[in-house]
Amino acid sequence: MTLDPVLARIDADLPDAIERLLDLLRIPSISTDPAYKGDCETAADWLVADLQSIGFEASKRPTPGHPMVVAHSGGTGPHVLFYGHYDVQPVDPLNLWDRDPFDPQIEDTPKGKVIRGRGAGDDKGQLMTFIEACRAWKTEHGTLPANITIFFEGEEESGSPSLTPFMKENRAELTADIALICDTGLYGDDTPAILTQLRGMLGEELTITGPDKDLHSGMYGGLAMNPARVLAKVIAALHDENGRVTVPDFYDGVPELSNELAAAWDDLKFDEKHFLGEVGLSEPAGERGRRPLEMIWSRPTCEVNGIWSGYTGDGFKTVLPSQAHAKISFRLVGTQDPLKIRESFRKMVQEMLPVDCTVSFKGHGASAAAQMTTTHPAFNQARKALSDEWPNAAAFVGGGGSIPIAGHFKEILGMDAMLIGFGKDDDGIHSPNEKYDLSSFHKGTRSWARILHEMTTV
Amino acid sequence: MTLDPVLARIDADLPDAIERLLDLLRIPSISTDPAYKGDCETAADWLVADLQSIGFEASKRPTPGHPMVVAHSGGTGPHVLFYGHYDVQPVDPLNLWDRDPFDPQIEDTPKGKVIRGRGAGDDKGQLMTFIEACRAWKTEHGTLPANITIFFEGEEESGSPSLTPFMKENRAELTADIALICDTGLYGDDTPAILTQLRGMLGEELTITGPDKDLHSGMYGGLAMNPARVLAKVIAALHDENGRVTVPDFYDGVPELSNELAAAWDDLKFDEKHFLGEVGLSEPAGERGRRPLEMIWSRPTCEVNGIWSGYTGDGFKTVLPSQAHAKISFRLVGTQDPLKIRESFRKMVQEMLPVDCTVSFKGHGASAAAQMTTTHPAFNQARKALSDEWPNAAAFVGGGGSIPIAGHFKEILGMDAMLIGFGKDDDGIHSPNEKYDLSSFHKGTRSWARILHEMTTV
Repeated sequence: MTLDPVLARIDADLPDAIERLLDLLRIPSISTDPAYKGDCETAADWLVADLQSIGFEASKRPTPGHPMVVAHSGGTGPHVLFYGHYDVQPVDPLNLWDRDPFDPQIEDTPKGKVIRGRGAGDDKGQLMTFIEACRAWKTEHGTLPANITIFFEGEEESGSPSLTPFMKENRAELTADIALICDTGLYGDDTPAILTQLRGMLGEELTITGPDKDLHSGMYGGLAMNPARVLAKVIAALHDENGRVTVPDFYDGVPELSNELAAAWDDLKFDEKHFLGEVGLSEPAGERGRRPLEMIWSRPTCEVNGIWSGYTGDGFKTVLPSQAHAKISFRLVGTQDPLKIRESFRKMVQEMLPVDCTVSFKGHGASAAAQMTTTHPAFNQARKALSDEWPNAAAFVGGGGSIPIAGHFKEILGMDAMLIGFGKDDDGIHSPNEKYDLSSFHKGTRSWARILHEMTTV
Repeated sequence: MTLDPVLARIDADLPDAIERLLDLLRIPSISTDPAYKGDCETAADWLVADLQSIGFEASKRPTPGHPMVVAHSGGTGPHVLFYGHYDVQPVDPLNLWDRDPFDPQIEDTPKGKVIRGRGAGDDKGQLMTFIEACRAWKTEHGTLPANITIFFEGEEESGSPSLTPFMKENRAELTADIALICDTGLYGDDTPAILTQLRGMLGEELTITGPDKDLHSGMYGGLAMNPARVLAKVIAALHDENGRVTVPDFYDGVPELSNELAAAWDDLKFDEKHFLGEVGLSEPAGERGRRPLEMIWSRPTCEVNGIWSGYTGDGFKTVLPSQAHAKISFRLVGTQDPLKIRESFRKMVQEMLPVDCTVSFKGHGASAAAQMTTTHPAFNQARKALSDEWPNAAAFVGGGGSIPIAGHFKEILGMDAMLIGFGKDDDGIHSPNEKYDLSSFHKGTRSWARILHEMTTV
């Protein structure tokens, strides 16, 4: 089966493809908020119907949370599984949106046309690139070039509680030769990227308690232990003067960057001044002596995601707080063991506490880093296909975020995963005014058509 | 005029006096929150009407903030001014209250009857002790034993922005022979106290900004500056390992305790184990090598009253926050200069900031410490009167809180001030479930009747 008519079909069909995506974006499938439970069902139904319309045997599959969508094309060729998620982030603060987040539209911007709306970039726009590629193959050739399984979840933005149980229960149905995941971005505007490593994550919430009630700082200040001061000391002690994390044994299992990867990343000519300048910063603030790309891709981190204690409203209240709280996350790399680090972190905090202070902890997820097996032939096939579509050759890159699904495919289904996506740094996913570039959508669709072709004809 | 019938009248009138106080407590006159502006007006109106009902020429006096209440009895005898405040603290966290803070009632407790509700102890219950004493004098003798001016403000819990301008504009009207201030506590359950020194206070709010928007910690974590970490370092650096404040020149003007006062305070046999034990603590956490009473009365402090940054809701959000905030207060003693300390503190914070971080400050009050002139005859008259009413003789004590009004009376009106109050350590002022002991209210009223008698018959 030839590729050219498929690409031509994608180009000709773009206006209709946009209409379909806008239709899906109109469904407010916010997974974290129970008020939108029905909308999550609607989004799943929409996808089932669309997949059926192009010949997939598709069904909505109940879970204790939001449903999964599973679809099979059947047929011959390599068996690939494609993963995406139809749920979206909440939209607050709503007043920062320039339009209704669920009334999407195409907008002209100085940088080109964009699809504006919640979920455009994360992940509805991305998952539709794959469906549209399948549609074009089917339209032109009456069949698909591979045996394709589609697997969409509706809980990615709320911690995926049903995901691994579902995978375990449906192991045979979901196992394929390789998984394709479309939930990541380009490397720069013109350079497609294949993620070959992802950081893991450990989330910790701690509450330090001093006095058993809030006190008046005039009556007790100077005499009574203040847990907000203790929390500040704990957080201040988590990094040394070189920006290294001080949790004991934290760096066990952190590999040095290979010479090969160091050279490849240097070739990417990452412009940290520009990357940081976009958010009002000028200088890398991570571990001294490390490349900026290492700081976000291959070095572990410890970040404070939230702190609160005492009076935080308008005006002033001279309270000496009873408790101080923090949410702290660690991004992990290599073979760092999240559970060992949790234990070491908690012990370190315990040991820092002065008399009269206690601490309680709550864990929020613990996942190890993922390293893809880039020797699988699909990686070079995809690299060639992407390089044919985009101005620059495709790069093997690292990812600073944590996408546990890649690890789950490996652990539960024994499949390698390939993460390819077409988002841009300025898409504003999880933020107001989220968008997806029309070029990401169009060239993303063409990219998948090429990847399927490359994977099945070589 | 004799005292005994006045005391008898107070005893007989107690049930009605309680009803009047409960009535005043029902008005939610929270001064810091603009939503309660009308309620502050209502509380002022209530007081004007009550004072008029016992013969005062009383009026509500507008200010740019909440109104003052000023009332004059006229008449002969020494001219005393009585000060209190009708505004109250906010009530959050509301879920920690066992009842509606503004639906007050009398409760039986293992330690006796208490008046429960916001403002019961601070300061509505206290100011009503003086009004009730005046009412009893008036009822029994048709007149008051002194020429009394009443002066209530409604902004004490929000930094008293209108207070000194109002005092300056109404100097002649407000000047008397001595000021009586009822906003303090007993020394122990059975020992009345006259405050002879008070700490000053400097309030500072700071906001440290890093990135110009909240970031995704997966995308930016490790590379981008995190202002919550910077704030923690600033707070952790405010005290050295001996608990001393590290702000440069902070201790300028801090006097050593005189031998005389040290001996008098040692005589008080302050039980810090019990004092701290009441709030779940066991050991003094202040400056190493200082008496516990010094820590709360005569040593300056720096306390964190509130911190907040990033995501503080349920669950977890891997945000790298754009801003981190803190409310910090300093208690001042001796001749420490609040404005110089503000400047030194702000400079210290500025100098600690790494590149890409900025800080903005907001001042919340700045008042110096106050030292009373205990040679004024009223001090010994009040000591005698209080000793007659209570089981133990009255003590001259220090105060850890800051009641800037005492300093203002001296500086602006040239009057000495005498601080006498009937609160208890466990009243929970500024906290949920605030209360005022019924015995404080009753014996406090009797105490004022005795003090007025002692001041006017000797």
